[in-house]
Amino acid sequence: MTDTTVAQTSAAARDARIDVEAVGDALLGRWKQERLEARATAEDPRLHTIPGQTMAEHRNRVFEQLGLLVEAGAIQRAYPTDLGGSDNHGGNIAAFQELVLADPSLQIKSGVQWGLFGAAILHLGTREHHERWLPDVMNLTLPGAFAMTEIGHGSDVASIGTTATYDPDTEEFEIHTPFTGAWKDYLGNAALHGQAAVVFAQLITAGVNHGVHAFFVPIRTPAGDMMPGVGSEDDGVKGGLNGIDNGRLHFSHVRIPRTNLLNRYGDVAADGTYTSDIESPGRRFFTMIGTLVQGRVSLDGASVRAMQAALAIAIRYGSERRQFPGASGRETVLLDYGQHQRRLIPRLAQSYAMAFADERLLTLFDEVFSGVGDTPENREDLETLAAALKPLSTWAALDTLQEAREACGGAGFMAKNRLTGLRADLDIYVTFEGDNNVLLQLVGKRLLTDYAAQFKNADRATLAKAAASQLGDRVSRFGLRQVGQSIADLGQVARSVESVRNPESQRALLTDRVETMISEIALALRDATKDVPKSDARARAIANEAAFNAQQHKLIAAARAHGELLQWESFTDAIERITDEPTRQVLTWLRDLFGLGLIETNAAWYLVQGRISGQRAEAVTAYIDRLIGRLREHALDLVVAFGFTPELLRAEIATGIEAERQAEAQAYVEAQRAAGTWPIHEKELRARARS
Amino acid sequence: MTDTTVAQTSAAARDARIDVEAVGDALLGRWKQERLEARATAEDPRLHTIPGQTMAEHRNRVFEQLGLLVEAGAIQRAYPTDLGGSDNHGGNIAAFQELVLADPSLQIKSGVQWGLFGAAILHLGTREHHERWLPDVMNLTLPGAFAMTEIGHGSDVASIGTTATYDPDTEEFEIHTPFTGAWKDYLGNAALHGQAAVVFAQLITAGVNHGVHAFFVPIRTPAGDMMPGVGSEDDGVKGGLNGIDNGRLHFSHVRIPRTNLLNRYGDVAADGTYTSDIESPGRRFFTMIGTLVQGRVSLDGASVRAMQAALAIAIRYGSERRQFPGASGRETVLLDYGQHQRRLIPRLAQSYAMAFADERLLTLFDEVFSGVGDTPENREDLETLAAALKPLSTWAALDTLQEAREACGGAGFMAKNRLTGLRADLDIYVTFEGDNNVLLQLVGKRLLTDYAAQFKNADRATLAKAAASQLGDRVSRFGLRQVGQSIADLGQVARSVESVRNPESQRALLTDRVETMISEIALALRDATKDVPKSDARARAIANEAAFNAQQHKLIAAARAHGELLQWESFTDAIERITDEPTRQVLTWLRDLFGLGLIETNAAWYLVQGRISGQRAEAVTAYIDRLIGRLREHALDLVVAFGFTPELLRAEIATGIEAERQAEAQAYVEAQRAAGTWPIHEKELRARARS
Repeated sequence: MTDTTVAQTSAAARDARIDVEAVGDALLGRWKQERLEARATAEDPRLHTIPGQTMAEHRNRVFEQLGLLVEAGAIQRAYPTDLGGSDNHGGNIAAFQELVLADPSLQIKSGVQWGLFGAAILHLGTREHHERWLPDVMNLTLPGAFAMTEIGHGSDVASIGTTATYDPDTEEFEIHTPFTGAWKDYLGNAALHGQAAVVFAQLITAGVNHGVHAFFVPIRTPAGDMMPGVGSEDDGVKGGLNGIDNGRLHFSHVRIPRTNLLNRYGDVAADGTYTSDIESPGRRFFTMIGTLVQGRVSLDGASVRAMQAALAIAIRYGSERRQFPGASGRETVLLDYGQHQRRLIPRLAQSYAMAFADERLLTLFDEVFSGVGDTPENREDLETLAAALKPLSTWAALDTLQEAREACGGAGFMAKNRLTGLRADLDIYVTFEGDNNVLLQLVGKRLLTDYAAQFKNADRATLAKAAASQLGDRVSRFGLRQVGQSIADLGQVARSVESVRNPESQRALLTDRVETMISEIALALRDATKDVPKSDARARAIANEAAFNAQQHKLIAAARAHGELLQWESFTDAIERITDEPTRQVLTWLRDLFGLGLIETNAAWYLVQGRISGQRAEAVTAYIDRLIGRLREHALDLVVAFGFTPELLRAEIATGIEAERQAEAQAYVEAQRAAGTWPIHEKELRARARS
Repeated sequence: MTDTTVAQTSAAARDARIDVEAVGDALLGRWKQERLEARATAEDPRLHTIPGQTMAEHRNRVFEQLGLLVEAGAIQRAYPTDLGGSDNHGGNIAAFQELVLADPSLQIKSGVQWGLFGAAILHLGTREHHERWLPDVMNLTLPGAFAMTEIGHGSDVASIGTTATYDPDTEEFEIHTPFTGAWKDYLGNAALHGQAAVVFAQLITAGVNHGVHAFFVPIRTPAGDMMPGVGSEDDGVKGGLNGIDNGRLHFSHVRIPRTNLLNRYGDVAADGTYTSDIESPGRRFFTMIGTLVQGRVSLDGASVRAMQAALAIAIRYGSERRQFPGASGRETVLLDYGQHQRRLIPRLAQSYAMAFADERLLTLFDEVFSGVGDTPENREDLETLAAALKPLSTWAALDTLQEAREACGGAGFMAKNRLTGLRADLDIYVTFEGDNNVLLQLVGKRLLTDYAAQFKNADRATLAKAAASQLGDRVSRFGLRQVGQSIADLGQVARSVESVRNPESQRALLTDRVETMISEIALALRDATKDVPKSDARARAIANEAAFNAQQHKLIAAARAHGELLQWESFTDAIERITDEPTRQVLTWLRDLFGLGLIETNAAWYLVQGRISGQRAEAVTAYIDRLIGRLREHALDLVVAFGFTPELLRAEIATGIEAERQAEAQAYVEAQRAAGTWPIHEKELRARARS
């Protein structure tokens, strides 16, 4: 440490030092045990990425690693107890999230096998399917692909082109991909290892298309030969995750038994009669798709973990690395530079907010999937929450990994320091399991629906008074809150934000932004068809589409603001549970930095809307600078609290090697000076001559 | 095209259609011929990246590719005519920039060999050195490393630890790396192929350190054995550029002849006497380092080229790809979505601004290096301009490659579509040849110096009137402009911005931001020591350092704003040279989008400073939306104007393959419908039953 940092550290130590263990426990959350078990597994060198392996070597290695996970009992948790699992849904995802630090390829390939292929059989199939296939899925004797996405359709699953046409004569479905765009694509396990696939296809029986359903389709023999009518193409090298054998599958009139339809939500009788417990085809589709939300929950937490790793590496290195002589007489530690702090410390605050938000998401997920709280409302809330958080955390992971990479300079670019590898692998997280922009649009639409629900029977004028009391519990949980409330109070909110430091003010400002944006969008949409005759349905549809399209960018921004508010609330709730006062203080600074950072980022909006004054906006920035200054001394503690062992982090520059090199250089110079062999610099000589 | 786009296209065609060739010529600029030659070379499949090669294979391939460049006469341009070059400095860099689309590893390895190692001999050595080594450097029989950066010092070159101590008894220098931090690191050609290195070291003679100088040091025999006392370590796998054999070099008392000092700017006589034409050690150091500016100029243009490729791929794909049914009856083309336009079209505008700014930079570079305008002032301007533009373009390239990758979904992640590979390779561009943050700080310091120069003999009060006339030509060129002018006019500027569409208003707003930020920072710095006694030099240094550190983040933001202003001006100047009216109109919209985009991004600042009203800020956003809508129909033309052949672009999704797949799917559905075999959807059936 420099003289300055020593002085600052001791000053800070007098005031507040965080309880690293308590913070670590808060971050590990409810599934601490499962997380620690998974971390212990992830420390096994046999599960680690080897940079520079060829794609073929990496794919083989990852396949073998899946076997090691089976042996370790690491992947069974979500499956039924009587089939060897433990019906532990939250714990399963929590453990899965931790695997990202072993190798993201291993993580995602295991996600394909057990979280997509296996989970589809579990959630979309029925007992007979479970007994028939799940034991082999679980022990990896039956590797499988999850064949939903097609070359031509990713985000719009409802429009996929693959068909499953029922033939009552043979009691078979015929699986067919009638054109290139209908070929399944980007599927893990498709290029090499998969022996079966859960194929999503339009179910057609008796001349009627009943929409997308899932079918169990054998694709390869155990010896690796393709089944008749099934073709596979290798996707080849990708931008990351090259340990996974992604590929295409196409089907030419491939016949499977009727009972291979995963029939939990819809079935076809031997005579071809279609039945379903869910009458509406739309709701049926979304119910089936909804069972797959665990992918998004998984990615959310995995992204947080990668973000934490990036910060642990960059902050450790930034605390040891020195560059450019300082006034103190020694070179300055990177993390003492204002710009370096601005680059890393707000992202540290963000990582905390996102970690706590993920815990909230996981809790809701467990509630739904354990059956404790499996209501349609909770399912809808879960989907909205996952759709709000996954985009923000996956983008933040890429952003943080990149900033950390740059903050470590050339060293950050070396594979041995892990930042570039994690970034390359996590790149695809922002568009898979739901494209981030599409997910945020989904959240935006939910917010608009909540908004409309509140105003269903009220005209605009009566709204301000009445709306506050219209809010049900459900809407207030993860959807739009307090719209009426704050519309009524708006003027007051604007004026009453005396101090932005106060959490109520932060909450009011963050909430207000979501609500105001949504209400403005709703208004713009409502006016879209006012000049189009009600009788002209097509013209109205076109006008609505154009109006929506004009608002799309803003709607996605509103959805992001909503997600950020949820993160801020999760962070705030987590602080409530911290009892140690100095720790609480530091975490409160960190939360304030997160909240005020959001307000600073969106300051233009707050200014234009008259929510804050120019002076207040400047005060926000000034206070952020002060918070960053205070937090600088706790930055190392705050990354130590992530609890990563060297075996998990595995970045050379995060091992203390830079501090050793600094000490060696310093010792050399001092020895030279002591021996009188240190050459005088020409500059000094000239300075002496001048004086 | 959809019905809508067809209609819009024909409407747009009536109004304005760009002259693609004229725009292409404007983009190719003054060194069009050299660029086209380089592109023809880059089309050679032997020079193309093969995704998935091992590091060893890739390194061998790239080394062989360098040989092909020699054969093609592609790398000699900058060298003296009598040694086989053509003294064409601008053309050399222009051609080099184009190579990024062959393989960035090839580009950067050739940059190491001829732009760093060779250029150091050329610019820091003298005639004897040129004759002795350059022919072998040029024909690649002498591959070499550029050994400046050390493990312990990257940005702060002046503090490197390697020493070159002169021994008059043997008339040799002893090259030595006395501690681990002094080992040279990240050097291309160091791990495998380099036979010599230009080593930067502290020149010590007669007990005096004369600062950093460059030395020619043999490191390996042609057979690949290390020279005595020289050690090498392989940096191993990196986040990209794995075709380059980066590594470390360390030296244990390695002796080289006195004449291996590259002595253009400083020399040591046989008896150990040091001489230099440049008296000040500081200025001498910066003069030597300054000869290496070509690396930054090269990266600036290479980044623009990569950005253009990303946009060409994503905009082509976005114009063909469809997703989600639209009101028109077909699925909607991605580029017709408001959000998709917001993601790609402003970046298209940015790429144009950056391309024109790079041309300006290259022109100044050529002026200095050809000798036509080699003045200290021009050298300083060149360095500032390069330091301002290189950070913005290298960051923008990563940002644009990433947005393009995401805009292409899963297809964007496939190596065969090139986006991820280019991004991985270009990642390091943001921290090498000058860390972006450090470079922007350099620009910020120059702006502060210009500011101080203007106010040298004026107190604050007399300034507003007098300063306008104090500005010399030089300061007004690439440094701070019109400070006095606009401080005088400030109130007026604020009120007179009647329409943001008008280029004068854009210029005034962009200029004003730079000036105001710099003057605020200058004021804060001036006040730093006002309470510290003049006699206490150390206390003053510490106070100054703390004040500067507190302003660092803002100073870097101001430097960025300055770079953006220069880009805006370059774009504006380029439009002046376009004669075709419709083309001019479209490029003007594009320039307005760039300019207003900057104002929108920084709207909070303009609002806080009272430069624009809230209403005006909203008008800016509304006008940006309109500009994007207008430009959507020209987006394809604007990327076609980049002039990339399929051999350069080499992205499957940019070949029209998606349009073919869409047509195939459409034809299938239509044929089924015509044959009466298209199944009715359950939804329709239910809708019919209801009605």
